[in-house]
Amino acid sequence: MSVLVVGSIAFDTVETPHGRREEMLGGSATHFSCAARYFTDVRLVAVVGSDFPSEGLEFLRSRGVDLDGLQVREGKSFRWEAVYHGDMSQAETLATHLNVFRDFSPVIPESYKDSPFVFLANIDPDLQAEVLRQVKKPVLVAADTMNHWIADKKESVRKLLASADAAILNDAEARMLSGEASLPLAAERIRSYGTKYVVIKKGEHGALLFSGQTRFALPGLPLSDVRDPTGAGDTFAGGFMGRLAQLETVTESALREAVLYGCTMASFNVQAFGVEGTASLTRQDIDRRLEEFRNLVRL
Amino acid sequence: MSVLVVGSIAFDTVETPHGRREEMLGGSATHFSCAARYFTDVRLVAVVGSDFPSEGLEFLRSRGVDLDGLQVREGKSFRWEAVYHGDMSQAETLATHLNVFRDFSPVIPESYKDSPFVFLANIDPDLQAEVLRQVKKPVLVAADTMNHWIADKKESVRKLLASADAAILNDAEARMLSGEASLPLAAERIRSYGTKYVVIKKGEHGALLFSGQTRFALPGLPLSDVRDPTGAGDTFAGGFMGRLAQLETVTESALREAVLYGCTMASFNVQAFGVEGTASLTRQDIDRRLEEFRNLVRL
Repeated sequence: MSVLVVGSIAFDTVETPHGRREEMLGGSATHFSCAARYFTDVRLVAVVGSDFPSEGLEFLRSRGVDLDGLQVREGKSFRWEAVYHGDMSQAETLATHLNVFRDFSPVIPESYKDSPFVFLANIDPDLQAEVLRQVKKPVLVAADTMNHWIADKKESVRKLLASADAAILNDAEARMLSGEASLPLAAERIRSYGTKYVVIKKGEHGALLFSGQTRFALPGLPLSDVRDPTGAGDTFAGGFMGRLAQLETVTESALREAVLYGCTMASFNVQAFGVEGTASLTRQDIDRRLEEFRNLVRL
Repeated sequence: MSVLVVGSIAFDTVETPHGRREEMLGGSATHFSCAARYFTDVRLVAVVGSDFPSEGLEFLRSRGVDLDGLQVREGKSFRWEAVYHGDMSQAETLATHLNVFRDFSPVIPESYKDSPFVFLANIDPDLQAEVLRQVKKPVLVAADTMNHWIADKKESVRKLLASADAAILNDAEARMLSGEASLPLAAERIRSYGTKYVVIKKGEHGALLFSGQTRFALPGLPLSDVRDPTGAGDTFAGGFMGRLAQLETVTESALREAVLYGCTMASFNVQAFGVEGTASLTRQDIDRRLEEFRNLVRL
């Protein structure tokens, strides 16, 4: 089954203790697609500027990503610049130039409207809601958000989550949105807005899944070569949603496996800059890493 | 098989966002014993002052802890005072009065010398080594340490670990001792000193086990009612060593299960002040929590 992602495509300039890269292909929709495409068809809705190079389009297209929903607008593409210090647990944003992304208004092409799996990456919650008005009864809608929207549009975020099936947030966002310091209490609170599943990403410490009766947790895979954490959260979402779309079901065991796939794809992402870590994996690479993860937690 | 613990018995005064307790029974040997005693016989070596109340001895004795190795010295017992803020991830020590613990010189009674499992809780690494000279070929020796000894006696700590089988450290200690920020690299470095197994405790984020070929990780059990983390590390060690002693073996699968038991006992510990959380559990309480943990990570 296909998965639709609505999010950003950006050029990222990133410096970490392991190096610096300028104007790498990035953005939430890019990172998501680079992970999800191993498991299912990906339909992308985003906007780029007239400066966006054909190599960028070719990169995505060659990976099987459907670009019918990509808007090309007069002007410059979204650019983001950040530096990570020390243990790289937090990005210090140096510059955000939204450019054409500032007026992004997602339009879902007719051919995408029946998408059974929908991922609303971090954009204005009112625009995320706008997407949901355009699609027809998806099997599962998952939404991300960020501190900025929680601070400025908390009610919109809550309303959006009420009409989504799953919230995929990091620990700081879950705490900020719910006002609860304890993650199980935060998840309970967020579920009370109306969303069935809450997935909390904890970076190097793994991920948690809360549904009604079920709690599932995976530790992070211990890695000795983390180089750039940019996009790890969207890569997680790509693995998570991609696997659910591939399994064509949202049972408890499918959700657990989806978290494993999310963590697995995120582990590739952080080992290299930008999408270098996920761009060109073989099925064997992924299977080996999945097996490594299963062994890590085997009791 | 019996487990021998050499460590401290203290009176702890602790304040957390959930309350304050004065002069609770605490110390590494106490927390360790309160967890390990559910799984095996515990032999304790520690020192208390002449002010130590008979209720304290009775508390431990009634839990089956062998006190033949407990020294009672003229003077006051060890006292520690600390406050935890916010998410309680770090204790701020307000006062440390070593009192009789300052001149603690562990003497292993004849009846303890054949102890097959030995846990060297955090004391001067030269004293930990002294203990190892007194015991006869244990099956497994595990050692803890702390930042203070790593800063002041790093060579002694390394030498001690070379003659122990397992290091049980928290993430900050592992990083400080090894000089490596990445935990898998830190574990590799610590194993290079000569210790076979490295267990890294990550508080609310669970625990990691590294041996030659094997890496094992458990996430933390999501808890909504953490009240006092004091002693969680020693409680983990009690569950870990207690389970190994009960299984009478140190195979890979036993080690994995021991980490599960350690995390499980630590989860009880943090839900209440001092040893309130572990003092009076039933076998059913423990079995239920173990099952909850297994379900949490089941793929």
